[in-house]
Amino acid sequence: MRFSIQQPALLHMLQVVSKAVAVRTPKQVLTGILLEADDNTLTTTAYDLELGIQDTIHSDDTNQLDVSTPGSIVLPARYLSEVIRKLPSDNVSISVNNNYMTSIQCGQVEFHLHGIDAEEFPKLPEFQSDTQIQLQSELLNDFIRSTTFAASNSEVRPILTGTHIQYTDGTLNFTATDGLRLATRSTTFDDADTHNWTAIIPSKSLSELSRLLPDNDTVIDVQLTDSHSLFVIGETYFYTRLIDGTYPDTSRIIPKVQRTEIRVNVKSIASAIDRAALIARDRDNHMVRLEVQGQKMTFSSSSPEIGNVSESVEASQKEGDDFQIAFNAKYVLDALAVFDNTDVLIRFNGSNQPFTIQQVDGDVGLQLISPVLMR
Amino acid sequence: MRFSIQQPALLHMLQVVSKAVAVRTPKQVLTGILLEADDNTLTTTAYDLELGIQDTIHSDDTNQLDVSTPGSIVLPARYLSEVIRKLPSDNVSISVNNNYMTSIQCGQVEFHLHGIDAEEFPKLPEFQSDTQIQLQSELLNDFIRSTTFAASNSEVRPILTGTHIQYTDGTLNFTATDGLRLATRSTTFDDADTHNWTAIIPSKSLSELSRLLPDNDTVIDVQLTDSHSLFVIGETYFYTRLIDGTYPDTSRIIPKVQRTEIRVNVKSIASAIDRAALIARDRDNHMVRLEVQGQKMTFSSSSPEIGNVSESVEASQKEGDDFQIAFNAKYVLDALAVFDNTDVLIRFNGSNQPFTIQQVDGDVGLQLISPVLMR
Repeated sequence: MRFSIQQPALLHMLQVVSKAVAVRTPKQVLTGILLEADDNTLTTTAYDLELGIQDTIHSDDTNQLDVSTPGSIVLPARYLSEVIRKLPSDNVSISVNNNYMTSIQCGQVEFHLHGIDAEEFPKLPEFQSDTQIQLQSELLNDFIRSTTFAASNSEVRPILTGTHIQYTDGTLNFTATDGLRLATRSTTFDDADTHNWTAIIPSKSLSELSRLLPDNDTVIDVQLTDSHSLFVIGETYFYTRLIDGTYPDTSRIIPKVQRTEIRVNVKSIASAIDRAALIARDRDNHMVRLEVQGQKMTFSSSSPEIGNVSESVEASQKEGDDFQIAFNAKYVLDALAVFDNTDVLIRFNGSNQPFTIQQVDGDVGLQLISPVLMR
Repeated sequence: MRFSIQQPALLHMLQVVSKAVAVRTPKQVLTGILLEADDNTLTTTAYDLELGIQDTIHSDDTNQLDVSTPGSIVLPARYLSEVIRKLPSDNVSISVNNNYMTSIQCGQVEFHLHGIDAEEFPKLPEFQSDTQIQLQSELLNDFIRSTTFAASNSEVRPILTGTHIQYTDGTLNFTATDGLRLATRSTTFDDADTHNWTAIIPSKSLSELSRLLPDNDTVIDVQLTDSHSLFVIGETYFYTRLIDGTYPDTSRIIPKVQRTEIRVNVKSIASAIDRAALIARDRDNHMVRLEVQGQKMTFSSSSPEIGNVSESVEASQKEGDDFQIAFNAKYVLDALAVFDNTDVLIRFNGSNQPFTIQQVDGDVGLQLISPVLMR
């Protein structure tokens, strides 16, 4: 293998795939990046067997890719990325010599890195499915950002570490829950060619995907098999395994009625909860109390060692009963962060039932949070 | 105690003193910040018994300080700073109630923090010395930045964790060394009122001082006692203990002659060494080799597992013998960072002797580095 390319183009390709490089693994080849040079294309691939990212470029005036001998090699990701990052913005030549020793040359600099036979690199999952859907990048990104954070970090129930994605009769839905909070978002769109489907995708994978999605209307092609999904972002292929199993039926958890409905500005309560959380301690689940009296919402928290805090916010509208409730401030702040600086409707059913947050105008889905039971 | 003040002014005062708050200590009062309100002044103090910082403001139109009841209290630094930081940019009222419980009120927000009796806070060292000197802030900052990094981090020889500062017959000198490298800088200025003096100041304290020094010609008043020094930066008082003992005589270490003198651009060799260091490993002391042949300087390093690198830089001038040497890349990069993008003179005495780096034009002192002995 022998090719040359402009340093910024190669660096970008390495950065795109870097998140799929295995960090801790006894299999050394998984800590590498596969480089494949063909006639006028260069492909970089990283695959930790859960997440795989592949990026391809074709020769153009900017990248100045010039492949003189097609071939492939696996190079250690950490060193390769650091070496390329520290080279000047100039033409870089890469060639494989004997025993996979690879030369990286740029001006007066010449590195040699020990490579690994490309044959040892694992094959990415194959996709020939007709289960596919086209989504706008911006929409997909919004859906990811407003749901995946609510998934569980604990492997106690692996299925809850995933985000449940369903396309049913023209409705696309994303749902994530860790058992104490739930985030869900839906949209309808008619795509006559799309069959109903369902998949549980690791939420960590979706967060990494989000990093690669442009905030515009680029069309992302999503494909599914029984075990994997593939997101095609231009020349970048993003593979992730699916989580096996049946996702719990979350529809029953969302209350249909409420005893109190409050309309209030997101930012004003987020600031109040953020301040109250300063006194709330980790070991008490960041517990903040809310007392609703008329339109007055009073957030408070206290700690015997540190002190206490109390802050009142006036709701713009309130219907139903007065009540008190306590909640995990972190959960509520995560949920409120989904909404822009706008008014939300919060629906409560007393002190011991979950409450929901939704936007007044516009649809960015529903956030549900279980209260902390007060002592 | 009862006063009110604009939030940004109070936040700034807390940030100025925060670095002198004790982090790990059984004495709880040292983890606090002392607030003292007098007629029209507010003083904040933190003192971990090694470093002390005190900041004072007087009432003006911007800070809107208004002291209605003079008094003092110690509040837990971590919570106080976070609380003030998260308050809106508005008027904050602070008052001490029963049992040192302190109320912090701003708009609809009211915090109560447990305080500690101000009497328990340690007294800052007293200064009535006539050993003092006036330095321009910018000069002092430059001196700190070009020397203190070379001090030792190890408590094996505590004296080497300090920076040796001397004022002798009109010459001010800063020197720091960890035994393998040395950084020194001098300047002359005539101050008829200044007696000769010498002090060993903890290098960590000087780094913190540097953070507070404005990059301009503000005059900093430096005072000394046998055990402490004080830097007065406007209304900010910066105290540090001195290190006891006799600093080693470093003048004999600096070679008076050289076998090779090279003139070269700082940036070109810094980039080459930075790249070569990518392959140099921690356990080999970041060892990079340099081979000098004529005007050609070749930097290289190698590792059996990773690979190797080599890069040549053309010196603009060279006198004396060709040779090879090996050095700790981190040490040389630290030393080169002292110089701007300019030409330096590097003076060598073969493979086994320390080499020195100095600027060709202008005086930013001397850097000396011991080689790594090649196997």
